[in-house]
Amino acid sequence: SLLEMRGFSSKDFARFHPGGSLGKQLYMRVSDLTALNEKPMVSPDANVKEVIVEISEKMLGVTAVIEDDKIIGIITDGDLRRMLVSVDNMNGVTARDIMTKDPKLIDNDAMAVKAMELMDQHGITQVLAQENGKYMGVVHIHNLTKE
Amino acid sequence: SLLEMRGFSSKDFARFHPGGSLGKQLYMRVSDLTALNEKPMVSPDANVKEVIVEISEKMLGVTAVIEDDKIIGIITDGDLRRMLVSVDNMNGVTARDIMTKDPKLIDNDAMAVKAMELMDQHGITQVLAQENGKYMGVVHIHNLTKE
Ligand SMILES: Nc1ccn([C@@H]2O[C@H](COP(=O)(O)O[C@@]3(C(=O)O)C[C@@H](O)[C@@H](O)[C@@H]([C@H](O)CO)O3)[C@@H](O)[C@H]2O)c(=O)n1
Ligand SMILES: Nc1ccn([C@@H]2O[C@H](COP(=O)(O)O[C@@]3(C(=O)O)C[C@@H](O)[C@@H](O)[C@@H]([C@H](O)CO)O3)[C@@H](O)[C@H]2O)c(=O)n1
Repeated sequence: SLLEMRGFSSKDFARFHPGGSLGKQLYMRVSDLTALNEKPMVSPDANVKEVIVEISEKMLGVTAVIEDDKIIGIITDGDLRRMLVSVDNMNGVTARDIMTKDPKLIDNDAMAVKAMELMDQHGITQVLAQENGKYMGVVHIHNLTKE
Repeated sequence: SLLEMRGFSSKDFARFHPGGSLGKQLYMRVSDLTALNEKPMVSPDANVKEVIVEISEKMLGVTAVIEDDKIIGIITDGDLRRMLVSVDNMNGVTARDIMTKDPKLIDNDAMAVKAMELMDQHGITQVLAQENGKYMGVVHIHNLTKE
């Protein structure tokens, strides 16, 4: 077939077909995906070192910042990198100092494809999920693309 | 329809349909995507501060490490974060000290879907493209998912 001539295996094609792997995530809720992941979080008063440990341990490249049971911010690997430009000495720097306020959120019962739309629109790879204002976890772009 | 009942708009569906946006990238070569991006690179002797500037300016969350026109390593935002755990003073730390050797590479004329497979297999969001051993640029996961 033409596809085979262009270097496609049927496995490649299956990934993108509606009946294939990406198509399957269409039918999922965000909650089906957050349930697969760890739930990284720190308090706004956490030291940068604690932030780094939390992001590294939970393996999602991100942590939520939680105060009084509410999501007040997010810190990504990109935010840590940008901190390094402006901060000479990390002692005394807290999560509050480097977090992004009002992060992109999604309802835990939204369809997964909505999380992908948010990621594409904003050039981000993680979205925080909430339910009645409570932090429910993280959707990572790999949750949406992986077989 | 059932899909509409589950919260799908026809726009959502178009994203995942073979004739839709993700389907379109199937027909592209890696070279079509690397051409859209900046080409971050540093020498192995670059200071960490220069690495951070290069990653930030080129906006892909990553830089290649190039020596004698060859790709010898990669540094991601995740690698910078991990460096922060072990390094107390960044003065004197070079790209060579923190890079990952033998990064995941792809041929610039491979099909784009192959880049997605590499990303999913290894939990990475960027792949470096080469042509006859020469560094040709970066494919970012957003190049594969964005409309
Ligand atoms: N083409 C590539 C890309 C990456 N890497 C290496 O693979 C490792 C993981 O890549 P990463 O980009 O740092 O991956 C991270 C990580 O920290 O491991 C980033 C993080 O933001 C988040 O996206 C998590 C995922 O959640 C998976 O754990 O993944 C790094 O040592 C990187 O140098 C590589 O060898 N070749
Ligand atoms: N749910 C989210 C996720 C992220 N952000 C914020 O959006 C900004 C960009 O997110 P990022 O994850 O840091 O995005 C980066 C970035 O550094 O901007 C990471 C980098 O590895 C690479 O993936 C690039 C893309 O190449 C796009 O430039 O994107 C950050 O301030 C982050 O706090 C947010 O408000 N809400």
